[in-house]
Amino acid sequence: MNAEIIAIGSELLTPFRQDTNSLYLTEKLNELGVDVIFKTIVGDHPEHLAGAALLALSRADIAVFMGGLGPTEDDLTREAVADALGLALHRDPEIVASIERRFAAHGWKMSANNAKQGDVITGATVLPNPGGTAPGQWISGQYKDQDRIILLLPGPPHEMKAVFDEQCMGRLRAKLPPQFIATRVLKIAMMGESQCDARVAPIYKLARDVETTILAGRGEVQLHLRTHGASLQAAQQRVDRLVEELEEELGDFVFSDNGESLEQIAGYYLQMRGATVAVAESCSGGLLAERITSISGSSRYFLGGTVVYSNALKSTFADVPFELINTHGAVSREVAVALAEGIRRRSGATLGVGITGVAGPSGGTPEKPVGLVFHALASEEQTEVIERKFPGDRDRVRWFSSQQALDMVRRKMM
Amino acid sequence: MNAEIIAIGSELLTPFRQDTNSLYLTEKLNELGVDVIFKTIVGDHPEHLAGAALLALSRADIAVFMGGLGPTEDDLTREAVADALGLALHRDPEIVASIERRFAAHGWKMSANNAKQGDVITGATVLPNPGGTAPGQWISGQYKDQDRIILLLPGPPHEMKAVFDEQCMGRLRAKLPPQFIATRVLKIAMMGESQCDARVAPIYKLARDVETTILAGRGEVQLHLRTHGASLQAAQQRVDRLVEELEEELGDFVFSDNGESLEQIAGYYLQMRGATVAVAESCSGGLLAERITSISGSSRYFLGGTVVYSNALKSTFADVPFELINTHGAVSREVAVALAEGIRRRSGATLGVGITGVAGPSGGTPEKPVGLVFHALASEEQTEVIERKFPGDRDRVRWFSSQQALDMVRRKMM
Repeated sequence: MNAEIIAIGSELLTPFRQDTNSLYLTEKLNELGVDVIFKTIVGDHPEHLAGAALLALSRADIAVFMGGLGPTEDDLTREAVADALGLALHRDPEIVASIERRFAAHGWKMSANNAKQGDVITGATVLPNPGGTAPGQWISGQYKDQDRIILLLPGPPHEMKAVFDEQCMGRLRAKLPPQFIATRVLKIAMMGESQCDARVAPIYKLARDVETTILAGRGEVQLHLRTHGASLQAAQQRVDRLVEELEEELGDFVFSDNGESLEQIAGYYLQMRGATVAVAESCSGGLLAERITSISGSSRYFLGGTVVYSNALKSTFADVPFELINTHGAVSREVAVALAEGIRRRSGATLGVGITGVAGPSGGTPEKPVGLVFHALASEEQTEVIERKFPGDRDRVRWFSSQQALDMVRRKMM
Repeated sequence: MNAEIIAIGSELLTPFRQDTNSLYLTEKLNELGVDVIFKTIVGDHPEHLAGAALLALSRADIAVFMGGLGPTEDDLTREAVADALGLALHRDPEIVASIERRFAAHGWKMSANNAKQGDVITGATVLPNPGGTAPGQWISGQYKDQDRIILLLPGPPHEMKAVFDEQCMGRLRAKLPPQFIATRVLKIAMMGESQCDARVAPIYKLARDVETTILAGRGEVQLHLRTHGASLQAAQQRVDRLVEELEEELGDFVFSDNGESLEQIAGYYLQMRGATVAVAESCSGGLLAERITSISGSSRYFLGGTVVYSNALKSTFADVPFELINTHGAVSREVAVALAEGIRRRSGATLGVGITGVAGPSGGTPEKPVGLVFHALASEEQTEVIERKFPGDRDRVRWFSSQQALDMVRRKMM
């Protein structure tokens, strides 16, 4: 079974906006065993939309239309799909009444053009939309003797998700042959993509029945595994077996096999150990604290941090002696250690993290080039330092350094 | 003139990857007066790709194909476009030699399948790709008696941009009727989209010759203005006149009319005044410091910050008295003031910023609900406080609070 996703709206053809709904829909359709074979983005233009509708009906088993269900003249999806199918639209008084009630609940009067949102394609099932005035529609029928499923969904992401999850997943599952698909995601920290692939390719290439996708970005590699099976248990067993082999090969470079982010995992481990952490950042500029505190509940293990851009504040907030900075420079192993130990002492945290480096684009020297970063982790028994030379621009260097520091916390606590 | 953009690659039909090249291309094509009327995403599948190629040739003046120019069996764009045009491919020995030289420069030997990247569609102009082995191709010809321009571009974003900018913009400009298009962007802080639109719609609706697009997100509204003219000067004058009227209406809510971010603008003003800033953040968790330091050169005006999650650190790093926290609670006007004044005193900065609030999702109470945030700005003469109740989830509340604080700094320094 395959599908085409058609995103409708002239704003999606500007440089400013992009369809992102299709990523969510693709994930859900894949879960049902449906491959997405085309995505089309088309504006609020009657002929273009009619052409796109005909085309989707001719080449995909399932056509998902998103957007263009609003009340304005530009909202043409209902008309275009009805025309493509050669079916009529009729106005459903029950939908119009419910839109009127919706407006009335806010003390407003429905404007006349909203009535258009009650137009239903003959034979379609109306899909209630709890989040908005535009209901979706489900059509199961034939186009030129081919079985087709056609979905009309609202464009706003939260409305689209609610209507798809609550109204379409069950109906699709009932229509489609049963599918048993198991997936897992392994996340690997601080290893290059090619280095990782060189180690895992010999393993996943033997498991031909499991589809493996490698995604890499800024200090993280993800292995997405997916397989079909005669039963869910059989599929899950195959994926789980491959996960075990990959984890054995990659060891503690794997930080998650269940979708969590590195900041979440570092937080889990800190909580599990009843430990706390405080950070003193220079070049990462608060990004490490920001990532740690992006996790709800982080106040249980994150005491706080300092962003010590000036040398004076390195001393004020983390007790870094001026002589140390004068002797070794602000970007040095020694200052990273002093930051980590100083913030640990000042805060009373179990662990102290210190980061100092050159984020660029300016400020680099032959001895201390852009991308050079020292990361220190202080605990009761010792302080460890990792020196790195990261590639890329200011954003990338800052991200890599926060990633490296989180990984040091994770490894210390695991 | 109109264009279709076709992004090629099976990975673009997974839940994990998305075409983003088309946003850049759309911006550039719009500059040339070309509207994008369709975007198609298609996998590495011979029939699907052939169908997409035929379709694009039939419905758009310019067809831009991106991706599928690599050396593997899956890279089929050259073949599909040649077939659709009914033209042959021939292997260009000069391209093959240059790929061989490229490999040799790295001390590698070219593998046999790379030779395929030397296949050129009859009549095409080869577009050198300084960043990769796959050159682009430019074809200017006819399809069913219609004039067509066809571009084949590499998929990796930096290669696509380089080939398009250096090899295609000039050629397109020479082919297309001269276009004089002027654009401006106004950015507005801390005003709702509907509130903003209510004020500006009566103005931009009168300027019918200028196309106005409103984009809104997290504490920022953008007005994108665009017009054609008989000369660049005429177009620019029309846009500039509208900008003046809009700025007069919106006053100091407009923080940029030249594309800068709020953190950039706050930094400009601080530098202009020879002032410095330091921050003490609770609920924003380092995001404010992170945004300020994301700007290269921020060390000239940013001294540093503290992220004071625990009450103890509010006292250690910003001298907030324990009694104050006990009396008013950590989330209070009084503690925000104490944070701002404390960090200003400790750091010696011109301005001190204090933020305390409830980012959620937990921690809210009837008196202090999720989304309540106090922002304080301390200077030599006074300390001002803004209390807000932000909507949305943890990420949004944190973002809004950093946006509000940056806007207070901007307004103080402007």
